[in-house]
Amino acid sequence: MPETASEPRYDVIAIGNAIVDIIASCSDEDIAELELNRGGMTLVDADGADRLYAAMGPATEKSGGSAANTLAGLAQLDVQCAFIGQVADDQFGKVFAHDIRAAGIDFDTPVREQDPPTGRCLIFVTPDGERTMNTFLGAGQFLPASALDEELIASAAILYLEGYLWDPEEPRRAMRRAIEVARNAGRKVAFTASESFVIDRHGDDFRAMIDDGLIDILFVNESELATLTGEDDFDTGFDAVAAKVPVLVATRSAKGAVASAHGERAVTTAAPVAKVVDTTGAGDQFAAGFLAGYAKGERLEVCLKRGAIAAAEVISHYGPRPEADMKALMEKSL
Amino acid sequence: MPETASEPRYDVIAIGNAIVDIIASCSDEDIAELELNRGGMTLVDADGADRLYAAMGPATEKSGGSAANTLAGLAQLDVQCAFIGQVADDQFGKVFAHDIRAAGIDFDTPVREQDPPTGRCLIFVTPDGERTMNTFLGAGQFLPASALDEELIASAAILYLEGYLWDPEEPRRAMRRAIEVARNAGRKVAFTASESFVIDRHGDDFRAMIDDGLIDILFVNESELATLTGEDDFDTGFDAVAAKVPVLVATRSAKGAVASAHGERAVTTAAPVAKVVDTTGAGDQFAAGFLAGYAKGERLEVCLKRGAIAAAEVISHYGPRPEADMKALMEKSL
Repeated sequence: MPETASEPRYDVIAIGNAIVDIIASCSDEDIAELELNRGGMTLVDADGADRLYAAMGPATEKSGGSAANTLAGLAQLDVQCAFIGQVADDQFGKVFAHDIRAAGIDFDTPVREQDPPTGRCLIFVTPDGERTMNTFLGAGQFLPASALDEELIASAAILYLEGYLWDPEEPRRAMRRAIEVARNAGRKVAFTASESFVIDRHGDDFRAMIDDGLIDILFVNESELATLTGEDDFDTGFDAVAAKVPVLVATRSAKGAVASAHGERAVTTAAPVAKVVDTTGAGDQFAAGFLAGYAKGERLEVCLKRGAIAAAEVISHYGPRPEADMKALMEKSL
Repeated sequence: MPETASEPRYDVIAIGNAIVDIIASCSDEDIAELELNRGGMTLVDADGADRLYAAMGPATEKSGGSAANTLAGLAQLDVQCAFIGQVADDQFGKVFAHDIRAAGIDFDTPVREQDPPTGRCLIFVTPDGERTMNTFLGAGQFLPASALDEELIASAAILYLEGYLWDPEEPRRAMRRAIEVARNAGRKVAFTASESFVIDRHGDDFRAMIDDGLIDILFVNESELATLTGEDDFDTGFDAVAAKVPVLVATRSAKGAVASAHGERAVTTAAPVAKVVDTTGAGDQFAAGFLAGYAKGERLEVCLKRGAIAAAEVISHYGPRPEADMKALMEKSL
């Protein structure tokens, strides 16, 4: 039986990959030669990461991780956030921890004092702005349930979970426990599907959680929705999931996004972008904009609009986190 | 007695700091509160670096190091380059090595397998685009003479030395040895003064080297020239040094630059910049543009113009190395 929910200390607490992005521009020929999964996210092992890094041009490092990126966007919009994720005791671990704390997000997961190193994502950006990600999860895949601060989870209005992290076993177990803690405390659970391959591998888990009413807010893109439902028709798939999930948000790239909440439905077009530089973080920032509105009880249409504005900002520059003054941008654009 | 100079295998070999830049924007108030040396480069120890990093906003990491930045600019202009510098066996060391090799520069200095870690430079960028650098030299200050590949040095037309690295003892000894090797092989020695504090501390060394005819090409900015000569009047100081150094290049920020070569003299205005985003690397890229022209035997005026174009490109974005297609930009702008 859920405890009586006390006033939450955080608006959103997220569990996700703790990753440093290594970003370089490349040609379309590079993508073909390296046989990369254009536009997708592919898991690579340490050797695979070394091989790809050696083939990569001069790069820039920026903190990443899908849910962590979303929090970075939320924090800019005065949403109180905390993050749980696993780094190792190395320079990239320090970079990740610094950047998330410097963004105003509480982050206290104990550092893991052994191999593998902190996770990294090799991101190849083609001239069209499309990002092709190759992730070595590193320490992130060993986030143990014992690292969860359950009191912290119970103290946040929304628990936000990253689908990418459903793949490795230990974090999956930790996330299941976190869902239990959140629900017992009367909190909401939000989930981002992250990528079709996650649903390919764990679709039964997700469908069961949806059927059991464990997910209050679900973020998917078109292809994830199709994989989840087995329905090629967007509207049919959307309706099927919307019937079971209190809040459903489906992003459709340049076509905008659709959301349903407790029977109500709203759509948004994509916000204009002068030039798409790097699509990394588009989904993460859409989720940030949407959740920022949702956390403040704004109308569904406004939540979607905020998502579209945040996504447009992040794809206009390299890197997965906002660089503009997002509060000012939202005020100007809404 | 110099050996007969054989056809050089490299155009330029540089010895410099192997550093990863950690770049964040900040307010003017931050600079004041942290008591930073606005616009300058200040050496900090490990604790100082940690303290400043904790006070810094979310950051981006990019490979830096003054001479290494210059080579990155040269390599883009088809100048054959090699680099000598000391990294440690850590993630930043791998980042530095990757980026310089990915830029097409040979880099084979053995990794140092002990503390301290690879050097890093905390760069605070104010809204006016001015950069304030705080450098923890780390492994870089332990570059030993034994790490020099003397055959490599003898095989390059120009040996390019970074003044910053004259400060710590071991690299200074290594650089003295490198000068000897280069001159014995009949090669030219280029030197960048880097920063006034270096001349404050080692001015006698530099003046002696100039008097002994050990420096063929010297890069200074206005304040370094004043410190070197003790002359506040730019022209008087310039004339005094130009009388002793075969090629002298003095940059004057927004006022452009002046050069003399074997009696000839030329000036350039600064190239136009739409918005100064981050002045990091301005001097490094000026040197790159100039040397690229010089290595190809271009007229002094053209060498200067190339320097101005390269400096304008690098201050129009964050980070110390060129991001535009510099060959195309030079063709368009010259």
